[in-house]
Amino acid sequence: VNAWFCWLFLGRIRFMSLSCRIVLVSPSHPGNIGAVARAMKNMGLSDLALVNPAVFPDHQATVRASGADDILAQAQVYTTLPEALAEAQWVLGASARLRDLSQTLIDPKQCAEFVAQQAGSKVALVFGRESSGLTNEELSLCHYHVHIPTAPDFASLNLAAAVQVIVYEIFMAQRKAAPGQASQAPRTDLASASAVSGFLTHLNELLAAINYFDPAHPRGLKQRLRRIFLKASLEQTEVNILRGMVRKIERVLGKAP
Amino acid sequence: VNAWFCWLFLGRIRFMSLSCRIVLVSPSHPGNIGAVARAMKNMGLSDLALVNPAVFPDHQATVRASGADDILAQAQVYTTLPEALAEAQWVLGASARLRDLSQTLIDPKQCAEFVAQQAGSKVALVFGRESSGLTNEELSLCHYHVHIPTAPDFASLNLAAAVQVIVYEIFMAQRKAAPGQASQAPRTDLASASAVSGFLTHLNELLAAINYFDPAHPRGLKQRLRRIFLKASLEQTEVNILRGMVRKIERVLGKAP
Repeated sequence: VNAWFCWLFLGRIRFMSLSCRIVLVSPSHPGNIGAVARAMKNMGLSDLALVNPAVFPDHQATVRASGADDILAQAQVYTTLPEALAEAQWVLGASARLRDLSQTLIDPKQCAEFVAQQAGSKVALVFGRESSGLTNEELSLCHYHVHIPTAPDFASLNLAAAVQVIVYEIFMAQRKAAPGQASQAPRTDLASASAVSGFLTHLNELLAAINYFDPAHPRGLKQRLRRIFLKASLEQTEVNILRGMVRKIERVLGKAP
Repeated sequence: VNAWFCWLFLGRIRFMSLSCRIVLVSPSHPGNIGAVARAMKNMGLSDLALVNPAVFPDHQATVRASGADDILAQAQVYTTLPEALAEAQWVLGASARLRDLSQTLIDPKQCAEFVAQQAGSKVALVFGRESSGLTNEELSLCHYHVHIPTAPDFASLNLAAAVQVIVYEIFMAQRKAAPGQASQAPRTDLASASAVSGFLTHLNELLAAINYFDPAHPRGLKQRLRRIFLKASLEQTEVNILRGMVRKIERVLGKAP
């Protein structure tokens, strides 16, 4: 109860603090539990629930958590899945199967958009055994079934890799939902068209002076050079560097007979 | 050469057969190499390149590959990053850093959309060391820098988790792009990384010969020049033009006393 309450509160001050619990059902490798904890912490999640883990706690879990020890320390251990889901308002289960779930099947992006829309609700994401996933009965506890698309001939993702993909999508969807999170900073440093033209004129003068251009067709080559530097979308400092280079060459050539 | 050719051919019959090479620079844990191979195969990729792996091949790699043994068996091992990138026409590097790269920084979705548009081109995705990522020099070889957004207080993703996120996005973008195939005409004319590096080496030799570089800090300026020409995404004919320009200046300078 505390954890959910805490997230509801924090959700108002930090957009990535989402009430989203990750539930692992009968994980057999403690290393995977650690890797899941790391993936969760990377993506701003912290509520980990374990249903009948084969080995936990364990040194391998701590090693693979690589600093996400707090997630492991807070992890709740249950003996049945319904206990782990008791307070969840929405339950989404990861499934490698496509059949019989078509009405409720969503992909990781749809899952993330759904979770992002549920701010204030308690969402649980359930992942099955490394070997066999979730049983039909476990899947029947889920409102939606999340399928990660894969190459058809090699469809079994590592447990922590599957969690990583889904928590990454949730993090991205949260960011998108958050106001004022510009994806790219405005470019105030780009050189003006006249600065670029000034450099190109300078370069062309140098090249003309050393007879680089074909006198019969000078324009083709000049246009190719312009295109190269336009494609580079030069910054003003880069224009300065390039002009410095041309000036230096001119100065050295000036000493030539 | 065979691997690239193979992808170009397969690209016509299977949409997910993309000419996209995953390059791991100095991975220290063989388990991560195996997990990367598994993530790649899950998402329909197969061209893995390793630059100075600490331990490879290794039992741990095979265990974590969990059936993606063929990816490990075909993996190419190099001693330098430029060798691994020699044939690449687009180089994208994963970076946890945000500063100083703002002009070239993209997120995994933008990366995937870009890769999906480059069907027919040779794309390399570079991932750095578990401990410290890519060096500034390695990052300077990349046209774009891919940053996976994370929680600010726990930003270091596991290597295989980072690869998983990006290859998942690439797979999703490919699916979306199919069956209409590439949204842009394939760029078969783009210069290879080695051709661009050859030109830059030539330019640097010229500039060093005329004492253009500050002897105390030659590298900063060299990296700025590299960035300018990477941003231009040079075609082979443009590389030829630029080399012709450098050769011409050299020849004229040769006549100087």
